[in-house]
Amino acid sequence: MTSELFGQLFLPDSVREAVSDRAWVEAMLAFEAALAAAEARAGLVPREAAEAIAQACDPDRLDPAALAREGRRAGNPAAPLVRALTEQVGGEAAGHVHRGATSQDVMDTAAMLVARRALGPIAAYLDGVAAACAILADEHRATPMAGRTLLQQALPITFGLKAAGWLNAVVEARRRLAAVPLAVQLGGAAGTLASLGADGARVLGLLAEELGLEEPPVPWHTARGRVAELGAALSIAAGTLEKVGRDLTLLVQTEVGEAAEAGDGRGGSSTLPHKRNPVGSVLTIACARRARAEALLLLDAMAQEHERAAGAWQAEWEALVGALAYAGGAAAALREALEGLEVRPQRMRENLEATGGLLLAEAVTTALSEALGRAEAHRRVQAAVRRAAESDRPFRAELVGDPGITLSSEQIDRVLDPQSYLGSAEAFVDRALALYRDAT
Amino acid sequence: MTSELFGQLFLPDSVREAVSDRAWVEAMLAFEAALAAAEARAGLVPREAAEAIAQACDPDRLDPAALAREGRRAGNPAAPLVRALTEQVGGEAAGHVHRGATSQDVMDTAAMLVARRALGPIAAYLDGVAAACAILADEHRATPMAGRTLLQQALPITFGLKAAGWLNAVVEARRRLAAVPLAVQLGGAAGTLASLGADGARVLGLLAEELGLEEPPVPWHTARGRVAELGAALSIAAGTLEKVGRDLTLLVQTEVGEAAEAGDGRGGSSTLPHKRNPVGSVLTIACARRARAEALLLLDAMAQEHERAAGAWQAEWEALVGALAYAGGAAAALREALEGLEVRPQRMRENLEATGGLLLAEAVTTALSEALGRAEAHRRVQAAVRRAAESDRPFRAELVGDPGITLSSEQIDRVLDPQSYLGSAEAFVDRALALYRDAT
Amino acid sequence: MTSELFGQLFLPDSVREAVSDRAWVEAMLAFEAALAAAEARAGLVPREAAEAIAQACDPDRLDPAALAREGRRAGNPAAPLVRALTEQVGGEAAGHVHRGATSQDVMDTAAMLVARRALGPIAAYLDGVAAACAILADEHRATPMAGRTLLQQALPITFGLKAAGWLNAVVEARRRLAAVPLAVQLGGAAGTLASLGADGARVLGLLAEELGLEEPPVPWHTARGRVAELGAALSIAAGTLEKVGRDLTLLVQTEVGEAAEAGDGRGGSSTLPHKRNPVGSVLTIACARRARAEALLLLDAMAQEHERAAGAWQAEWEALVGALAYAGGAAAALREALEGLEVRPQRMRENLEATGGLLLAEAVTTALSEALGRAEAHRRVQAAVRRAAESDRPFRAELVGDPGITLSSEQIDRVLDPQSYLGSAEAFVDRALALYRDAT
Amino acid sequence: MTSELFGQLFLPDSVREAVSDRAWVEAMLAFEAALAAAEARAGLVPREAAEAIAQACDPDRLDPAALAREGRRAGNPAAPLVRALTEQVGGEAAGHVHRGATSQDVMDTAAMLVARRALGPIAAYLDGVAAACAILADEHRATPMAGRTLLQQALPITFGLKAAGWLNAVVEARRRLAAVPLAVQLGGAAGTLASLGADGARVLGLLAEELGLEEPPVPWHTARGRVAELGAALSIAAGTLEKVGRDLTLLVQTEVGEAAEAGDGRGGSSTLPHKRNPVGSVLTIACARRARAEALLLLDAMAQEHERAAGAWQAEWEALVGALAYAGGAAAALREALEGLEVRPQRMRENLEATGGLLLAEAVTTALSEALGRAEAHRRVQAAVRRAAESDRPFRAELVGDPGITLSSEQIDRVLDPQSYLGSAEAFVDRALALYRDAT
Repeated sequence: MTSELFGQLFLPDSVREAVSDRAWVEAMLAFEAALAAAEARAGLVPREAAEAIAQACDPDRLDPAALAREGRRAGNPAAPLVRALTEQVGGEAAGHVHRGATSQDVMDTAAMLVARRALGPIAAYLDGVAAACAILADEHRATPMAGRTLLQQALPITFGLKAAGWLNAVVEARRRLAAVPLAVQLGGAAGTLASLGADGARVLGLLAEELGLEEPPVPWHTARGRVAELGAALSIAAGTLEKVGRDLTLLVQTEVGEAAEAGDGRGGSSTLPHKRNPVGSVLTIACARRARAEALLLLDAMAQEHERAAGAWQAEWEALVGALAYAGGAAAALREALEGLEVRPQRMRENLEATGGLLLAEAVTTALSEALGRAEAHRRVQAAVRRAAESDRPFRAELVGDPGITLSSEQIDRVLDPQSYLGSAEAFVDRALALYRDAT
Repeated sequence: MTSELFGQLFLPDSVREAVSDRAWVEAMLAFEAALAAAEARAGLVPREAAEAIAQACDPDRLDPAALAREGRRAGNPAAPLVRALTEQVGGEAAGHVHRGATSQDVMDTAAMLVARRALGPIAAYLDGVAAACAILADEHRATPMAGRTLLQQALPITFGLKAAGWLNAVVEARRRLAAVPLAVQLGGAAGTLASLGADGARVLGLLAEELGLEEPPVPWHTARGRVAELGAALSIAAGTLEKVGRDLTLLVQTEVGEAAEAGDGRGGSSTLPHKRNPVGSVLTIACARRARAEALLLLDAMAQEHERAAGAWQAEWEALVGALAYAGGAAAALREALEGLEVRPQRMRENLEATGGLLLAEAVTTALSEALGRAEAHRRVQAAVRRAAESDRPFRAELVGDPGITLSSEQIDRVLDPQSYLGSAEAFVDRALALYRDAT
Repeated sequence: MTSELFGQLFLPDSVREAVSDRAWVEAMLAFEAALAAAEARAGLVPREAAEAIAQACDPDRLDPAALAREGRRAGNPAAPLVRALTEQVGGEAAGHVHRGATSQDVMDTAAMLVARRALGPIAAYLDGVAAACAILADEHRATPMAGRTLLQQALPITFGLKAAGWLNAVVEARRRLAAVPLAVQLGGAAGTLASLGADGARVLGLLAEELGLEEPPVPWHTARGRVAELGAALSIAAGTLEKVGRDLTLLVQTEVGEAAEAGDGRGGSSTLPHKRNPVGSVLTIACARRARAEALLLLDAMAQEHERAAGAWQAEWEALVGALAYAGGAAAALREALEGLEVRPQRMRENLEATGGLLLAEAVTTALSEALGRAEAHRRVQAAVRRAAESDRPFRAELVGDPGITLSSEQIDRVLDPQSYLGSAEAFVDRALALYRDAT
Repeated sequence: MTSELFGQLFLPDSVREAVSDRAWVEAMLAFEAALAAAEARAGLVPREAAEAIAQACDPDRLDPAALAREGRRAGNPAAPLVRALTEQVGGEAAGHVHRGATSQDVMDTAAMLVARRALGPIAAYLDGVAAACAILADEHRATPMAGRTLLQQALPITFGLKAAGWLNAVVEARRRLAAVPLAVQLGGAAGTLASLGADGARVLGLLAEELGLEEPPVPWHTARGRVAELGAALSIAAGTLEKVGRDLTLLVQTEVGEAAEAGDGRGGSSTLPHKRNPVGSVLTIACARRARAEALLLLDAMAQEHERAAGAWQAEWEALVGALAYAGGAAAALREALEGLEVRPQRMRENLEATGGLLLAEAVTTALSEALGRAEAHRRVQAAVRRAAESDRPFRAELVGDPGITLSSEQIDRVLDPQSYLGSAEAFVDRALALYRDAT
């Protein structure tokens, strides 16, 4: 996360709150309260002590600045939190605070709780993106536009197909995120839960139950696959959003003009009043890049030493915060961009005709193949293409004027109609929509 | 992939072959043969033409050097391959080669086939790593050693627990890799399969069937989540292996000496005859770093433009090759290191005693708590720890000589026995082994 | 580096050769010959032995496949090379081979020699890119086109200014690469050069002299700043080239059409005969991404343990090869794209007029400010912009028809002429050209 | 940057302040004031207006929360700042605020000013690290310890040589950072400075003078080599520090024990009172990893479109903040660790003897070579090494008892004295110290 200046610029409030200092403190306290409760259920801690601890787990009673300052000495913020909480609890119950746990148990479990909390708004924004894509796919299932490969017009597609491609990718990204298991962490100082005697594994299970997190088979202090998988899923979600953002910036180019972001004052330029900057797409791309950079740190931090690591683990905390926050930021910005998107079918149609029908040369070849065979058809069409390019005359005219092209001018018109050469576009739209509806 | 010089150094033959030029050519030809077969089943291509095509799909008839040279002009190696294949087929059937497909259909499907082929040996090597970990976990379930956090001795664990942690992580990594869906690609020039008319979606399904790959709901030319997910799973597998390799390099340190890689001449140094370099672990780490770098490119390449991308896609090919190859290289090297590992329980025991029992201060506190309460117990034990540190006298002596420590010397001996303070170590070993056995 | 299939596609021969297995073997042998020569000059090795060693340093006498196979056992290819060379030398002189050096001395020095060799063609290709940019900057210093920000037309610029921006960035990238120091490595097994007695530091200096590399103050076996700096400079060069490639792909878009890559058959599509794919730009972008991924590994591998590292160093070799090769590949591809670039001033002019003069709203405001003051001028121009947008009437008409706009229609025409609102564009072109000429 | 919780944990106040929101606002206002001053000197703006603007450039008058909120609409925080400043200035002078500049001019120049400010404490911390290394190198120039390669003891070195290696790398990293040029940015909306007429280039020069930044030959809105170079230099500095931190964590291992971080309560563990965690080294490593992740984003963001980018640029802001902050955090943490480092020569000596002299086998070979020739000497010493390893008898005994080893037992003792086999260690220490003293 970030400064106010940049944080508010890139991130919606719901996401910022979910990964805030406050959220971390709450999550750490939730761990301590749940641990005491689990240990009470296991008969290791008196019920009253667990209740006293639960009651003391009040974020308002802790001074975050003090935690932060002391955290520098301990190398993590959990140690001072435990100390402060123990003081808050006081009396006999104080001796039962944090029983059997180590700082990393607190931090890792808190990280999973923060992740779960942040995945709420992230998923909601992704759902918003998917919903907007679904509407576009459905509404524009028959809106022809140029399909572009290597940024060159290639063949007609529909805007619905493009949106269906976005939709399917977002649905997949959402599914991947939801599938990442979030597990509780509890191993004690070296992963044996030694100070809980024979009850360690049982407490682990009860703690998982208390917090609604997955129970891992073994402590995972230095087995960071879970964290890396979460990071990867966030990065893939961000990359999926970035692709849509990139497409939008290309569609809204002045010379393309097939869409525009909402003109509600956003993206206006005081010195350049004619401009309508695609601010939502730009924020999407910027956030996606930041989410990815943070996720890469998580993938890079897996080789953690022995039972608990010296440095790589400590680098994870903010990287996870950042990956969550900016994946959320990307989803929020893109949802806004898509929901306000102005689609311009007329301009799509005009661009489609920019090459005077050349875009449909392949269709002509196909139509001609029945009569002439594929090879001959191909040869004749290429010759017409070449003549059109050289003479600057329309492709249609070259076709009509060529006696070797054994198609009537009506047939030629039909073949040059983009609508007639959309193949499975609509079928693909339907498939993507069906999967989307199944998933929601 | 790589030069011979480095390739043979880092990678086993099975992995190198699976991602070799030959493997790519075979995979591209498999696509073309299967496409013709699918189209024949759909009634779009005469059965004899499909057979002629299948017969011509012989990698020995293609000159890879020529493909490579021409590939530079086309921007990909599929275009010249299709041209060469079409020539090979000849006659009427030639017109049915590559019907409806685009170069990216060939390349993406071939990439998935290459991935599937490479995942064979990768999975086998991972299985070998897991098996070796399982044996170590089982055999050493009661072998005490120092647990180390931030590279400092913290509490006793067993070597079995350490190996169980490795095992569980490897089992998870293996499961993640197996879960990545490998889908066929077929969309034609712009993702509509226009030249297949109304039959596009049906051919897509038949093609998937022919090749045994997943059928995607829509073409995924610029929806790269699948590729990124594969890259991420390979990177996480590599990171999991790297963690084990890192632990091994630490365990075999001269001053630690708790393990050694096999002394079969590998890792010997002619100038330093006493050294036994952990070559397997070193190769594991080096390969893992390379796999990760390649995977990061895949995560970074997701924002692909419109219907087919200008540059980001083309960068994927070798990155996928590299991620597969080096994940395999890491697994192969680690398997070898683990299978030949010499474990030294005696040295583990000696190191465990290096702090004169200080490692078990927590156990003493726990034992003392019943009589004195946690706070007082903690205070007294810390005082003894401090005295031991300052006086250089053994911790045990400080405990015995302190009248405030209300434990008999027999009790103290029992508490200072690492075996008595292993908590759930064995239970965790059992859980990891059970999951491993379930997974195989 | 890479397979033939992909290697020939992405990389020119000169670059591939410079980082080939053969180049590595030659570089390792160059180290051994120079070391013997330096030690002969220092009086540590008989002159005849040094000559015998030099003579045996013949790459044709070594079997690279054997080196590779044995390298796997040693963990590096230098150890088997030294063994093979020692055998080749034979007799008395054999005892003087590799005197005082360690495998890493060979590998690191060879890496620097390979880098120096590869920097030859890389620099030449970069020079070619710069020369092409300089020609474009100069020829098109007065060719107006739309300047685009966030992919929206913003203000007029010249194509010369755009090319001058590319030029300056390439000149800087070239300078950065040339400034990276390439140092010899010689430290012996642990960096003391112990077996050279008191002569170590002197031999280090003589070796540097023999090879024409920089003499480092201390061995840098685990101080990898030099390698990281080289990687970073290659990545920045690649990123600089990628930016130009990206701009080209945008300029050649069908709807923009302000440039096209050479139509000499490259980038043609058999199924889509109207397309002219920007293959050179695409290869540039793909190569740049690969160079960056490799460079990131180098930046990531700096925390190398103690006197020589366990894994991070070994991961560097191929990463350096890749960073060099693909930076070269990007430069070669971009040079080709730029040298064959077809620039279309007419289309630039048409695009510039696409907004009916709105692009020059700022210029109108400036012109009007003298009479009305900035605030009032701004208000009135924005009103005209709004009316033009809403009415779909040309901006010029709105200006002429507005009595509050106190400019004659001739004045308005002059202000709406893009040529009159180019500010310092030409001055900037001159500055970039001057710096380029100074640098060459 | 970051939350308080993590920010205070990882970063010293001086660094946090230098990259804070407040620092950004001050830097943006410094740009606006300097621009007005430069334009006044160029005769474009009345002197009184420039003075009024300078006076209004007071960060206390701006509400950062409001800037942040509005920044989301504009896509950057500069636009609302200019608006707010213009209001603050009021009257006639208001029309001269931000004359000719664009938002990116403000942001890029502010970024360079923030970087300059942050490089102050970063350089100071690096100097502290270097000074601490220099003291260690000098004091321990004759303190023998084991040199370790692949984490195995290899040959004796001195702790002074190890520290000299650190020192030289830090001096180099410091030099690289100081060499990165920080340039002013001024180009107006599309890089032509059109609204400054013919005076653009001159104002650019005057602005650079006002701010003490470098004058670029052309605007660099989308030529991001400068930013990438700064990021790379920060990443290399961080990697250099991480290497030292890694070495420290290895040296302070319980089983190695050759050093310890200061025991002033930091790094203590309440549950594990015997532990002294290397908190400073751990923070160094964690910060270095974060700095690198941020720097990678900067290297990855270079392909910025046309005249100003859609997303990649916006992602840079926080990445630059993070790279600066965490490079500073790493330097601060390492300085603290090194200044308080407890070095244990006695333990170094003990570890050196752990192999019973095997570490000096190479020295014995060298000594024996004069009499027996290298090959025979090598053969005999290896045999003794093997016997020692197999029999568990000391290497010295095997040497003395072997009649083929033609050295007296006094000679053998001398050869087995690590002090006698340090080669150029001291010379290298002197070279590193000399360069350090030259650099300061």
